[in-house]
Amino acid sequence: IGREDTPLKLGYTMPGEFEPHEACWMGWPGGPDAKYLWREGAKPAEAQYADVARTISQFEPVQMLANPGTPAEEARNAFKFDKNVSVVEIPLNDGWARDWGPSCVARANPQTGKREVAATHWDFDSYGGFRKRAEGFAAQVPDWKKDNAAGRLISEHVGIPIFEVPGFRLEGGSIHTDGQGTLIATEQCLLHWSRNPDLGRSGIEAVLKEYLGLKKVIWLWKGMAGDDAITNGHVDNLAIFIRPGLVALSWTNDENDPQFEISSAAYEALQGTTDAQGKKIEVVKIPCPPPLFRTYKEAEGVAFDHVQKGYNPRVPGERLPASYINHFQANGGAVVPAFGGKATDTDRAAVQALQKAYGRERKVVGVKNSREVLLNAGNVHCITQQFPKAG
Amino acid sequence: IGREDTPLKLGYTMPGEFEPHEACWMGWPGGPDAKYLWREGAKPAEAQYADVARTISQFEPVQMLANPGTPAEEARNAFKFDKNVSVVEIPLNDGWARDWGPSCVARANPQTGKREVAATHWDFDSYGGFRKRAEGFAAQVPDWKKDNAAGRLISEHVGIPIFEVPGFRLEGGSIHTDGQGTLIATEQCLLHWSRNPDLGRSGIEAVLKEYLGLKKVIWLWKGMAGDDAITNGHVDNLAIFIRPGLVALSWTNDENDPQFEISSAAYEALQGTTDAQGKKIEVVKIPCPPPLFRTYKEAEGVAFDHVQKGYNPRVPGERLPASYINHFQANGGAVVPAFGGKATDTDRAAVQALQKAYGRERKVVGVKNSREVLLNAGNVHCITQQFPKAG
Repeated sequence: IGREDTPLKLGYTMPGEFEPHEACWMGWPGGPDAKYLWREGAKPAEAQYADVARTISQFEPVQMLANPGTPAEEARNAFKFDKNVSVVEIPLNDGWARDWGPSCVARANPQTGKREVAATHWDFDSYGGFRKRAEGFAAQVPDWKKDNAAGRLISEHVGIPIFEVPGFRLEGGSIHTDGQGTLIATEQCLLHWSRNPDLGRSGIEAVLKEYLGLKKVIWLWKGMAGDDAITNGHVDNLAIFIRPGLVALSWTNDENDPQFEISSAAYEALQGTTDAQGKKIEVVKIPCPPPLFRTYKEAEGVAFDHVQKGYNPRVPGERLPASYINHFQANGGAVVPAFGGKATDTDRAAVQALQKAYGRERKVVGVKNSREVLLNAGNVHCITQQFPKAG
Repeated sequence: IGREDTPLKLGYTMPGEFEPHEACWMGWPGGPDAKYLWREGAKPAEAQYADVARTISQFEPVQMLANPGTPAEEARNAFKFDKNVSVVEIPLNDGWARDWGPSCVARANPQTGKREVAATHWDFDSYGGFRKRAEGFAAQVPDWKKDNAAGRLISEHVGIPIFEVPGFRLEGGSIHTDGQGTLIATEQCLLHWSRNPDLGRSGIEAVLKEYLGLKKVIWLWKGMAGDDAITNGHVDNLAIFIRPGLVALSWTNDENDPQFEISSAAYEALQGTTDAQGKKIEVVKIPCPPPLFRTYKEAEGVAFDHVQKGYNPRVPGERLPASYINHFQANGGAVVPAFGGKATDTDRAAVQALQKAYGRERKVVGVKNSREVLLNAGNVHCITQQFPKAG
């Protein structure tokens, strides 16, 4: 790929996540940063990552990236009976494959007509860490070099061309596409002062269109309530394309919950516009769990000096941005978060509502429980990344 | 009262709130600070204050303190048909009579045996504002002179002796007594760095015993979830003496809610000790509302420059410390918060549970709705202060 080449110029576009995958990428949490990010050295988190990986592997192969050495050994051990999960040794800071992983684009080869896949590799800085650290704020990981390199390394590992976007700060969880030229994102995240403030809204739109081969960006207001602290409001917790023309939106009927204002604003924005094809967008409301919070016990499990070392503080009592929208669309399946406890009813209702939205072509499955992943403000979608099918 | 005299030396003790009152003091929110504290210039708040005052006035007289001028006129107008509510003109910053009001103490006169009432007047600094402002943090009100004077002025107005405690930072909502020498308080608030850090736990206990005529302080861990931001965990939102030997405690059964840890710790602390009389303490659990939050619309109603001016920021999405424990024990009554919406069921259940705990001697009444008061992190108890009966 030449220096002047971009996905748009070469006819690539970012497929919908619902299009066929070659595999699903994930990242194993174990490593030097783990104890500052997860409680009890990430052991409970790893158990939930393993459950998510196994559930996805019913539908498509999972490539689990893991830090060389002990973490990779532990990952291999965890999946020794799972033929459809393979471990790839790549240095990592943390296991958020959605965010540091490449955003893959695809095109029909102009000569052969065959589908080709390439990687758009953003300048991942751990959720605005470059500017946040400069201003004295914490980052999710204070030194994100390994994560930023990981997106490139996995693209090289699978042998796809890479479009680099140096200096453009973005995480994969902050965007969703319909595969037909439309992208959804939140103003809260993409226009956040820590990301690309010099570009402004139109500059950011231009980069997204150029590097994902898009025609239209639909701006939503904010991400889920409680999602400010780390991601600054990633769209992948709030809304997802079920298919072109149909968006699933996290919803509450409680008008006194700020989530109602957030979801209502997104609903209006989506209903009030058309997609890149000029078609009206249909929105299906998926109930969100009742409000969930980090407990004192959960906060205390993270190494006490994590704040001092520049990692995001794990604050007891903080609202956690729980959502069933944060699921992974696998080949013929959808793998959905579950929270248990007082969320047991919505755990069930969300799976039913999503099954209805997806129809027969996709089997909707809840994981056992993903509260541990939620403690770091993410869920199934945040810890996965699709590698679209070529050929 | 001589300089060396203290309530303890003169045989005073702080009565339980459940003992007979002469009147109930409240403070009308209107005034120069109102627009930086309440939305829409405090008009919706005033409507709820008026409803609370009217409800209490069924049981005992209410003396409504109000800023001279327009606020006092508005208050007089609001209560023109309420014979049992009178307006007293005293300059105020805000309407939190619980916190800046005097903590009244009483004794049987050594000569006559007649019950005498006096005021203990703390050095009110708007919830640790003296040290918070010095460290660059916001205070509830950045200049609290009028509120600090108001506790003295109302004591002079009703003609009771005043014990001053200069330099000792305390708010009335951070303590509860059983009238028999026992006080409950939270470590989170009374040991907070912004209050009296030089005294330490034993020094603070000594001052409380001396100025409230106490024998024993029972320390609870923290106040209600969501109550950190302003009060730093006032006990009056979490636990209250129904009568000597019986404490009502705000409770949730949701083990994943930090409120469960807070309530459980308080439950254990109370069950694991005895009161000043050496008797075991019984605890009755009162359900708390489901988690409530400040909406964006509610946050936007406060004057936009309130943060710049040093008032506590009203953050959208923040959890609000809702609790039915924050009620007022009137003569023969108890006036209890209500939140409506998804709290409608607990609004009803809490009144029933409290009625059962109080028994026939006290009629438990819910107010119409006190969400507006909750937006500033308090409720019925925080905006009232008992003036115990003498004679």
